[in-house]
Amino acid sequence: MSSTWGEKVKISVFGESHGKAIGVVIDGLPAGFKVDNDKILTQMARRAPGKDKTATPRKESDLPDVMSGMLDNVTTGAPLCAIINNTNTKSADYSNLLACPRPGHSDYTAYEKYKSFNDIRGGGHFSGRLTAPLVFAGSICRQILEEKGIKISAHISQIGKVKDKSFDPVEIPTDLMDKLSKSSFSLIDASKENDMREVVEKARLNQDSVGGIIECAITGLPSGLGGPMFGGVEGVISSIIFGIPAIKGIEFGKGFDLAEMLGSESNDPFEYKDEKIVTKTNNCGGILGGITNAMPVVFRVCVKATPSISKEQDTVDLQKKCNTKLSIQGRHDPCIVPRAVPVIEACTAIALMNL
Amino acid sequence: MSSTWGEKVKISVFGESHGKAIGVVIDGLPAGFKVDNDKILTQMARRAPGKDKTATPRKESDLPDVMSGMLDNVTTGAPLCAIINNTNTKSADYSNLLACPRPGHSDYTAYEKYKSFNDIRGGGHFSGRLTAPLVFAGSICRQILEEKGIKISAHISQIGKVKDKSFDPVEIPTDLMDKLSKSSFSLIDASKENDMREVVEKARLNQDSVGGIIECAITGLPSGLGGPMFGGVEGVISSIIFGIPAIKGIEFGKGFDLAEMLGSESNDPFEYKDEKIVTKTNNCGGILGGITNAMPVVFRVCVKATPSISKEQDTVDLQKKCNTKLSIQGRHDPCIVPRAVPVIEACTAIALMNL
Amino acid sequence: MSSTWGEKVKISVFGESHGKAIGVVIDGLPAGFKVDNDKILTQMARRAPGKDKTATPRKESDLPDVMSGMLDNVTTGAPLCAIINNTNTKSADYSNLLACPRPGHSDYTAYEKYKSFNDIRGGGHFSGRLTAPLVFAGSICRQILEEKGIKISAHISQIGKVKDKSFDPVEIPTDLMDKLSKSSFSLIDASKENDMREVVEKARLNQDSVGGIIECAITGLPSGLGGPMFGGVEGVISSIIFGIPAIKGIEFGKGFDLAEMLGSESNDPFEYKDEKIVTKTNNCGGILGGITNAMPVVFRVCVKATPSISKEQDTVDLQKKCNTKLSIQGRHDPCIVPRAVPVIEACTAIALMNL
Amino acid sequence: MSSTWGEKVKISVFGESHGKAIGVVIDGLPAGFKVDNDKILTQMARRAPGKDKTATPRKESDLPDVMSGMLDNVTTGAPLCAIINNTNTKSADYSNLLACPRPGHSDYTAYEKYKSFNDIRGGGHFSGRLTAPLVFAGSICRQILEEKGIKISAHISQIGKVKDKSFDPVEIPTDLMDKLSKSSFSLIDASKENDMREVVEKARLNQDSVGGIIECAITGLPSGLGGPMFGGVEGVISSIIFGIPAIKGIEFGKGFDLAEMLGSESNDPFEYKDEKIVTKTNNCGGILGGITNAMPVVFRVCVKATPSISKEQDTVDLQKKCNTKLSIQGRHDPCIVPRAVPVIEACTAIALMNL
Repeated sequence: MSSTWGEKVKISVFGESHGKAIGVVIDGLPAGFKVDNDKILTQMARRAPGKDKTATPRKESDLPDVMSGMLDNVTTGAPLCAIINNTNTKSADYSNLLACPRPGHSDYTAYEKYKSFNDIRGGGHFSGRLTAPLVFAGSICRQILEEKGIKISAHISQIGKVKDKSFDPVEIPTDLMDKLSKSSFSLIDASKENDMREVVEKARLNQDSVGGIIECAITGLPSGLGGPMFGGVEGVISSIIFGIPAIKGIEFGKGFDLAEMLGSESNDPFEYKDEKIVTKTNNCGGILGGITNAMPVVFRVCVKATPSISKEQDTVDLQKKCNTKLSIQGRHDPCIVPRAVPVIEACTAIALMNL
Repeated sequence: MSSTWGEKVKISVFGESHGKAIGVVIDGLPAGFKVDNDKILTQMARRAPGKDKTATPRKESDLPDVMSGMLDNVTTGAPLCAIINNTNTKSADYSNLLACPRPGHSDYTAYEKYKSFNDIRGGGHFSGRLTAPLVFAGSICRQILEEKGIKISAHISQIGKVKDKSFDPVEIPTDLMDKLSKSSFSLIDASKENDMREVVEKARLNQDSVGGIIECAITGLPSGLGGPMFGGVEGVISSIIFGIPAIKGIEFGKGFDLAEMLGSESNDPFEYKDEKIVTKTNNCGGILGGITNAMPVVFRVCVKATPSISKEQDTVDLQKKCNTKLSIQGRHDPCIVPRAVPVIEACTAIALMNL
Repeated sequence: MSSTWGEKVKISVFGESHGKAIGVVIDGLPAGFKVDNDKILTQMARRAPGKDKTATPRKESDLPDVMSGMLDNVTTGAPLCAIINNTNTKSADYSNLLACPRPGHSDYTAYEKYKSFNDIRGGGHFSGRLTAPLVFAGSICRQILEEKGIKISAHISQIGKVKDKSFDPVEIPTDLMDKLSKSSFSLIDASKENDMREVVEKARLNQDSVGGIIECAITGLPSGLGGPMFGGVEGVISSIIFGIPAIKGIEFGKGFDLAEMLGSESNDPFEYKDEKIVTKTNNCGGILGGITNAMPVVFRVCVKATPSISKEQDTVDLQKKCNTKLSIQGRHDPCIVPRAVPVIEACTAIALMNL
Repeated sequence: MSSTWGEKVKISVFGESHGKAIGVVIDGLPAGFKVDNDKILTQMARRAPGKDKTATPRKESDLPDVMSGMLDNVTTGAPLCAIINNTNTKSADYSNLLACPRPGHSDYTAYEKYKSFNDIRGGGHFSGRLTAPLVFAGSICRQILEEKGIKISAHISQIGKVKDKSFDPVEIPTDLMDKLSKSSFSLIDASKENDMREVVEKARLNQDSVGGIIECAITGLPSGLGGPMFGGVEGVISSIIFGIPAIKGIEFGKGFDLAEMLGSESNDPFEYKDEKIVTKTNNCGGILGGITNAMPVVFRVCVKATPSISKEQDTVDLQKKCNTKLSIQGRHDPCIVPRAVPVIEACTAIALMNL
């Protein structure tokens, strides 16, 4: 089912970019959890557009409107529905897209699936705006996880060719996790911010956009989570992560680098350390046989460049049935990677609630 | 749920490596499909061990025993259960593994989840042997898909540092697809076989193992398959692919290379060609907004080196609670990549039956 | 999962009786369906309270507010979310119920499950008010089914000891179906209305309430819907019908009367009639082996008397840990059977969309 | 999905009556549970045919063959697959049924769904024989539940017009539960056995069959199980129970009798008794708002008469497209109610493992 995910904690995301509202129903939250609105606002702000030149100038209002499932900020155990009203939408911008699908966008495939009935304005249900309810839902889930000592933090691993440092997967400092998960331009090595912003600004000036990579870590997980085969942690996390627009790949631990490694290199030797069993390296990303081993879970996802660019592109005219050119007007992010960081964290939190 | 997957066509895989039997129940196959046993045998043989020096010498019997759901080789519409009896198992080899978990293996995490009740012999339910029923189930699914003109083929993209050519994602010749999906050492550029075998043989002689990458393509898919958010093709395929042991990453289209690409580079321009809409490039791997665009779907997965190596490794003794050394005895593949190729194809076929 | 139901068309119901709003997300509707708001209003009105003396005088506003999934009253294919704001709630009435659970109500069991965090006001998420979004969702589903010639109608089969006629399960006239599915006091034999209203009025004057039975029929179904075992029509319908508060039983065809029937009596003989295969009787309620046979599907559900009565009742005080007496104040229906009729029809429509 | 059921503990049933074998995969059992084979055999024997004149004389072999998921009779945590080979099948008996569907049977509807590909021999996948793996799976589940003090027992409530006593739903003696769940003709009032057997024998002599009612009780459940709406205990139990062939109705507590009861009669008053909260009556069958209240859960199901009777019946000839007569040869139970008792208990146990 397209927009519903989860078994123990089930989310049902709805809304279209230029419709009346977007939102989410979260079914299965425990009763009696006191939600911290400030923490939600922090995460929503990290994802919100309009913060700086890397993002579209469209403004979004703040806290979603909770319709059910909370009483005095405490969960009741009933499904929690939160609504974000759509305001400040300029639908006129999108009038010709139904005829001329934007390259790299869902316009054409949505037309093939839903015909002309798809609400194409602003990307409709395919819009990156739908990640706002995900961040809301994930923010509640991560608060619940934090109470159990589980932390989730991601950072911009790469934009264009500029790379941040990587997590040390064996030992990730708590204060680094805390710093990253509040930042709006999350970097381990803060000195890389200027170079990255330059890459983005250059793309923007060229009416272009640029992609990147996000690395995410989870600490504090107990061992024994997940299961063999289709219940594995990798499968559960990836099935929700690929629900985020523009994500085209995911790798756990050393990922694709494992191809060139020997077993004697990639195997993580066990050892006792402070009477606990740890691994000396963590090439498997904290997951063996689909099950956590209590080491940090580390994974990386790649984010393709925003397809909406102002540069002229080749496309087709579905009505006239001929080739044509398209220059996309309207507001677009030249790079969504910084804003995607809290979305990755949020989806990870939702995934963990189901493990 | 660990070992059950799918909605329209649901598979339930069971068995342990050294138990009585392994097998699969397939629920939801259409009635009236004539199954070709030769095609099943071809695929089972590609996955079977003992073919050459890259694989473990253990022999497997041939066609699974179909218990239900077929009458005179025609599906009845009822659940199809197939059994593969375990024979020629040498369980004595594994007697000490419960105490000393093998690095890179599920021994430790399975112990944390199931305690000492896990059937550790031969890897139990975590064994790569469980991919045999997947190949069986996938082989039936791909026969059904082939009738609709859908082809699935994968090849060894990389072993160690030796790389095969890649698919041209815009146009993949039918005869290449057919050749690959029958080969037991699937390569686009057959001249790389020697180099790859040398890498494997060198690892074997060093009591080591080596990883690799598999690239998989699907042709003949109609546009409009999949859906936004969690119904996307990437999420569905990855959730079953990560059920295969040793897979640690997946990328669609240009995948992680998208990080360094500009939007003007990664966007695939549309054009009319022979009155059909195609894309000039296929960086998105045939999927936009989670939905197929009728171009080939192309993805790559990385396979870590077999964790079972004879080389001495550091581990812990769970009973004595101390660090120790382990040299794994028994039969192991120095490289499972060639045998994993038909497994990737099979899981892809099962995924497509659910789209 | 408590409040999510369905596979092909999935509904996720949310809200609490005295919270901000109630509503539903419907995921999986086909794109391009033109929704008729008048038909929705007709069904919402049949369920709405305050129509007459059988119902609570609380007023409800009219059409739910559609947030997504529709553009100019045509479905887009994206999830449809509809909201009904809660107004005119008098929460003060319910202040002491957390201490003294109402007999026959969910107060006590919800307390055991959710502790004091459950929003007990007005019954919270357990309230009959949550059937309003079900009627909304079902009303769209039945419009889609009607286009395929499928009709769903229910009537008040019994209130107290007063009984309506039953459907002739072999042949149900279209005009009867149409009449019933618009009526707010649906009866085959309209002459029974006075007697039934008298039973209800008598209960009301005695500060009491009364139960009943609803019979529902579906016509126009093709044969071959459903499946063996857990995919059977009976199981699918019953699993959603028991989601309606106060339903305690369901029977298909002759139901519990089958206990006293011989096989030669209960078997429905087949015959050709107008070149179509029909059954001479329809004791099985149109379902054999879980699969429709194209005869009308007929089932009956029993509805227990509204547990909220003003009459003094024995209960316990959870705080003082002693026995006590309770007289429930506030507005309550002395008989919910008439208002439950469109809810049964709506849930049946949702069930059929999943078959 | 037809033959797969459950979320936490998932069963996947397969097989056809005259195929090679029938069986079940159980996914999600806890690791480390010691299974008592004698208890399984007791339950399998209660369901097995050929015990006496109420049943078909076909013999069944004893314990299913466990292929996986158990080591030395202890569950490993991996999926447990059990196989029952089909022997002693006389398929010749059924040769003409594909042309002339048996009234009351699934022959016709299975033909409409699966066309001629359905394995009609012995009822195929629709056969009552498929309840054998359910009893096996349920027997393991009930052993696990028994360790937690939960007991499940059913009895023959009615055959034809002869009725057994009912459970006192407020207090059900443990020794009665134990006695019933071992009996092959389970009755509270043993004196009714002769009358019931006479009804069955009379039907048999008349080449006919007869229906009945089974009442089932669960004791020892904690309060707080289940949930509002679609997570309710009634819905979960009924969705698996309707998977059993011939079940056409289910009612909880007073069920359909609630129609004639006033709220003051049907509401169960709470009281403290031995410092525990109980209800003085138990008309709701231990379930309020879909959630258990720690009183016994009691429900009744109706079983239609076996459709296979030797008496001549009217049917159609699908090949000649005309009306015809049919006299069914072969072995049939004149009354399946006694054998259905352990099946109801088994499915209840599986349902409880999912709550």
